[in-house]
Amino acid sequence: MEVISIAVSISVQLYARTSKYREYLESLGDEVTNISATTIANALDYYDVSVRKDLSQISGSGRPKMGYEKKELLRDIKKFLGYDKQNSAIIVGVGHLGTALLSYQNFANCGLEIRAGFDVSPDILGKSVNGVMILDTSKLTDMCRRFGVTIGIITVPAEKAQTVCNELISGGVSGIWNFAPVTLKVPAGVAVKNEDLAASLSMLTGSMSLLKKTEE
Amino acid sequence: MEVISIAVSISVQLYARTSKYREYLESLGDEVTNISATTIANALDYYDVSVRKDLSQISGSGRPKMGYEKKELLRDIKKFLGYDKQNSAIIVGVGHLGTALLSYQNFANCGLEIRAGFDVSPDILGKSVNGVMILDTSKLTDMCRRFGVTIGIITVPAEKAQTVCNELISGGVSGIWNFAPVTLKVPAGVAVKNEDLAASLSMLTGSMSLLKKTEE
Repeated sequence: MEVISIAVSISVQLYARTSKYREYLESLGDEVTNISATTIANALDYYDVSVRKDLSQISGSGRPKMGYEKKELLRDIKKFLGYDKQNSAIIVGVGHLGTALLSYQNFANCGLEIRAGFDVSPDILGKSVNGVMILDTSKLTDMCRRFGVTIGIITVPAEKAQTVCNELISGGVSGIWNFAPVTLKVPAGVAVKNEDLAASLSMLTGSMSLLKKTEE
Repeated sequence: MEVISIAVSISVQLYARTSKYREYLESLGDEVTNISATTIANALDYYDVSVRKDLSQISGSGRPKMGYEKKELLRDIKKFLGYDKQNSAIIVGVGHLGTALLSYQNFANCGLEIRAGFDVSPDILGKSVNGVMILDTSKLTDMCRRFGVTIGIITVPAEKAQTVCNELISGGVSGIWNFAPVTLKVPAGVAVKNEDLAASLSMLTGSMSLLKKTEE
């Protein structure tokens, strides 16, 4: 996994910015048909030169005075983000975090369809959250195969995450989105994206210290 | 903000790895007093050379044959992550995501103390989640000042996030951890860490495509 995570990490900031470009372009009305890199840079408070470089990588150069055709640019951005392909996903662990993810409206725009939630608690089995049915975790592997699930989202407690991960992979899942605070072992060919809250927090506290030092 | 986010983005992967080093070292029993970079690399499936480089940056070189003294290394790691300083935080928006964050056990280990939650729903005002009291959002700015809050965690809907952010900053907060899918405007001197689920998802789908291409 290390080799892949290095390859991906190079473009972490590029993905983050491109995701913002998509958000911004989709917030614009139909009356906006063309847009320049400079307009986007100003709206998002990015450097002009970064936006120019990103967009030329994603969609070629804008035309002088005309900029980019918005529709075309948005299409290229979605392709770059992998949103042009539909991915079937399931969520394992429907606690507060799992429920929050099931309620997140934005995933459909990202080509992600959440097909089912899985949990062990009898209280919520058979119920639906945001229109998604909650099923028993014992059916996990079978259901992944039946639905053709490509992405498994793990929101179970840390000590259960590796078992769930193994079951997902047995079910044919090739991408794991892991919210449990644990390092998962996966075979070659399976992609993992970890959401590490502690690491995120340390990036915030790190940049706070950095700002303080700059001020002193 | 752009300058700072560039400075921080360089070490995104370093922070993520260092957070894993902490997690791993803390999982070891007291009987482990010394540890080598190689042992850590093997346990976490990282490259030996990366771990060596990271640790020498954080804590100097390990001693030949002895490696690092675990206690000392952990202390230096926590200092690097900013966990040696205590930060007072509040969470604004106690829906599913806010509740999930309030229930997250790991923050205390990271030097983060969540002092209060804020919401507008009368159903939960005055109640407590994981021992943290939920207060009315109208008291936000006052409470930030009274508690000496340094970090504001935003888990409100996108359209309310900027207003909440402004109130937090009026209350003296210098770090914003933003989970709302929106780009916040903040004055110089305030750090922002955005959790962008759509961007995270695109990193996963991006690395899935990358893996597929490698296999073809």
